[in-house]
Amino acid sequence: MTSDLPREDQVPSTDVAEDRSYRIAPDLVRAVEDALDRNEPTDELIAPLHAADVADLFEELGGDSRRQLAHALRGRLDAEVLTHLDESVRSEVVDVLGSSEIASAITELESDDALDVIEDLEDEELAAVLRQLSPSDRILLEEALSWPEDSAGRLMQRDLVTVPPEWSVGGTIDYMRARAAHLPRDFYDIFVVDDAGRPVGFVPLSRLMRNRRPVGIGDIMYTEIHAIPLEMDQEDVALFFRQYGMVTAPVVDGGGRLVGVITVDDIVDVIHDEHEEDLMHLGGVAADDFYHDILKTTRSRFSWLLVNLGTAAIASAAIGFFDAAIEQVVALAILMPIVASMGGNAGTQTLTVAVRALALKELTAANALRIISKEVVVGSINGVLFALLAGALAWAWFGSPIIGAVIGLAMIINLIAAAFSGVAIPLVLERVGVDPAVASAVILTTVTDVIGFVAFLGLAAAALL
Amino acid sequence: MTSDLPREDQVPSTDVAEDRSYRIAPDLVRAVEDALDRNEPTDELIAPLHAADVADLFEELGGDSRRQLAHALRGRLDAEVLTHLDESVRSEVVDVLGSSEIASAITELESDDALDVIEDLEDEELAAVLRQLSPSDRILLEEALSWPEDSAGRLMQRDLVTVPPEWSVGGTIDYMRARAAHLPRDFYDIFVVDDAGRPVGFVPLSRLMRNRRPVGIGDIMYTEIHAIPLEMDQEDVALFFRQYGMVTAPVVDGGGRLVGVITVDDIVDVIHDEHEEDLMHLGGVAADDFYHDILKTTRSRFSWLLVNLGTAAIASAAIGFFDAAIEQVVALAILMPIVASMGGNAGTQTLTVAVRALALKELTAANALRIISKEVVVGSINGVLFALLAGALAWAWFGSPIIGAVIGLAMIINLIAAAFSGVAIPLVLERVGVDPAVASAVILTTVTDVIGFVAFLGLAAAALL
Repeated sequence: MTSDLPREDQVPSTDVAEDRSYRIAPDLVRAVEDALDRNEPTDELIAPLHAADVADLFEELGGDSRRQLAHALRGRLDAEVLTHLDESVRSEVVDVLGSSEIASAITELESDDALDVIEDLEDEELAAVLRQLSPSDRILLEEALSWPEDSAGRLMQRDLVTVPPEWSVGGTIDYMRARAAHLPRDFYDIFVVDDAGRPVGFVPLSRLMRNRRPVGIGDIMYTEIHAIPLEMDQEDVALFFRQYGMVTAPVVDGGGRLVGVITVDDIVDVIHDEHEEDLMHLGGVAADDFYHDILKTTRSRFSWLLVNLGTAAIASAAIGFFDAAIEQVVALAILMPIVASMGGNAGTQTLTVAVRALALKELTAANALRIISKEVVVGSINGVLFALLAGALAWAWFGSPIIGAVIGLAMIINLIAAAFSGVAIPLVLERVGVDPAVASAVILTTVTDVIGFVAFLGLAAAALL
Repeated sequence: MTSDLPREDQVPSTDVAEDRSYRIAPDLVRAVEDALDRNEPTDELIAPLHAADVADLFEELGGDSRRQLAHALRGRLDAEVLTHLDESVRSEVVDVLGSSEIASAITELESDDALDVIEDLEDEELAAVLRQLSPSDRILLEEALSWPEDSAGRLMQRDLVTVPPEWSVGGTIDYMRARAAHLPRDFYDIFVVDDAGRPVGFVPLSRLMRNRRPVGIGDIMYTEIHAIPLEMDQEDVALFFRQYGMVTAPVVDGGGRLVGVITVDDIVDVIHDEHEEDLMHLGGVAADDFYHDILKTTRSRFSWLLVNLGTAAIASAAIGFFDAAIEQVVALAILMPIVASMGGNAGTQTLTVAVRALALKELTAANALRIISKEVVVGSINGVLFALLAGALAWAWFGSPIIGAVIGLAMIINLIAAAFSGVAIPLVLERVGVDPAVASAVILTTVTDVIGFVAFLGLAAAALL
């Protein structure tokens, strides 16, 4: 939630979102940077900021100023700030703060936020933080850490309100008032469980509110509940929420017993992160590249470029087979990148659509054949159109109708191959358990380069020599 | 929300999410397709499905079966199904159903869902639907349609509960019970407004619930509210929600008066759609390409490929300047794609990071210079590393240290140019008001192709001829 309790001296005020108010002002970043450079205190600049804005500040500062600021804020950093930090920035800040400050910070957080802060720590650091927690906090976090990374178990909130179906509206309200201090801070639904602790329904608070005190909970509860197993991957949890437009879902253990709740506000970050990951992987970079330092960025990009050097060498080797043809007709060397590049672009179009449709489970065994057929037809039509265009261009440029015909034919072949590969490659990768977003693009461009060069140069060699 | 009221004959049952239960089963799609082919009734197959699953069914069926199914369901299609359909599938279904059925369907929906269904209709169709609505429904929808597309005004829910700060918890609960029939179906917060109708705070229902009846609303309300102007773009609204981890935000008009509310479950779809759009645009395809028919897909992809043919021709023209060099040293033709392709890949890495950082407002005027410097340093380091690798490869392949040196030098030049362009191109496009996700990639690869070919062939011509 967004806010603290109003203090008595605080006049309620409405803050209407201005153009950039969802991100910290550049001037303020510079002012803090200057103050840190001059070793002046930054408290006056930082005090009025929301925790999310302090997190932005950390993210926008360079590495040195970032560590300086963390030092300056030691002992009084708002724990909420940690939850808003990007993963790689957080690990820098945590390094500076040290395990005892982290331990005291996370005791102030709700269980899922606390987990968020510590789950990416190094093993040693994690152990040091856990040692400094109270036994009850420690056990709770250790149990949560036992669920697979990115699973529903890591995502869920453990604090929730449950009642048996026999209770009345009035009894439930009295129960909550009596336990006010022990309730979760904000919640939207009350879960109804049977004797074995299995969820049988839920009642949104607004529904509880509009019914009179004697009404039975069992009579007003919604019974169509979609329970989520503890091990379910968060990407699937998000799909599930989007599919059924859900606001709340109970999480159950192997025995079907209610162990936690996931609310739609947890899903917002999951959807964002999962999309971001796919998009970054399609572009050949790590998901949080933007906040990595130069060495880390260079290293992770190097690996990807190394793979690409390999595929470029394969394409060059394919050209090498036709050196005699190029030596005699230099126009071939000039035109050959066109067919390869058009194939690469057309294939990337198909691939982008296929990778997304796979991630959203829209491309399935049931419609794979239909989608491949559609793509091949689209590829064929565009192949013929671009054969005519590129053929005419080559003919006009080099005055040779044969070269025009050759580039046209090669174009048709490569665009059909690109369309087929654009769906087939991610489908096969998914089937063998490789993330299609990571590996598809490099395989595809190898295919379209090699087919593009071989089709064009091979046909030319046959026709001209 | 997910559910209807329990009927008396309905036994509460828990549906634990299975592997694929967030998407309709392929077998069921085939069964419906077969039934439609044989002109048999599909009711028994469809009756048990959730509205979201019926929507999936429409999406997975081919165009013909899709229209057949819409025909079969005329007069008894659950209005909820329409809200779950992908835009281009929805317009097909709406065509078959006709304006009077759409009009009666949308009266069953909440105001924001109804708007969702009709806002993409053709003008004539929209007018026909509006004519058949009750005056009050029509005025409400017409007013909502007057807000810009994708604005907060289109996104918000108009039904909300407001109370003055002087009221007590008990009075508020009594007021809600008395007005039970007129309340929104499910809501999470009560808004507190002043005499002029401006929001001054809000009270989550869970907070209302845990306080005793005499407590004053003004004493328990949260006052740090982030109000959203009616015209704010939905992408900015989503950033705002993510930034402050909000669950609810009031929407205000020019006078600061409360006119509606946006809740986080509306934001889930916005985040998904905006990401999807960026990712698809980076791949050179329309956002809803997957559900377009062959003609529409071919046409939209053709335009993009045509632009790419133009840029490929420019790259070929650049090669053309060096035909004499290629004629004498055919190894140049064989090696030249390597430098261009490595530049394209390295540039795409930088570009992907920059486009995302721009969209999330993480790349700003305040840090642009720092990010460009970082990218150029990363490009330089990788440039030197790949200069050594590619140089050694070329030397070994063709036995010429000069060719090795030339490809190495060209590699350094192109990777630095790629790094600079990868940030500079989207920054400039954003500044001049062009969507960087759409146009950046094609400009970038033109730059890296031309610089790659010219640097390699130009240096080779100077060194070898």
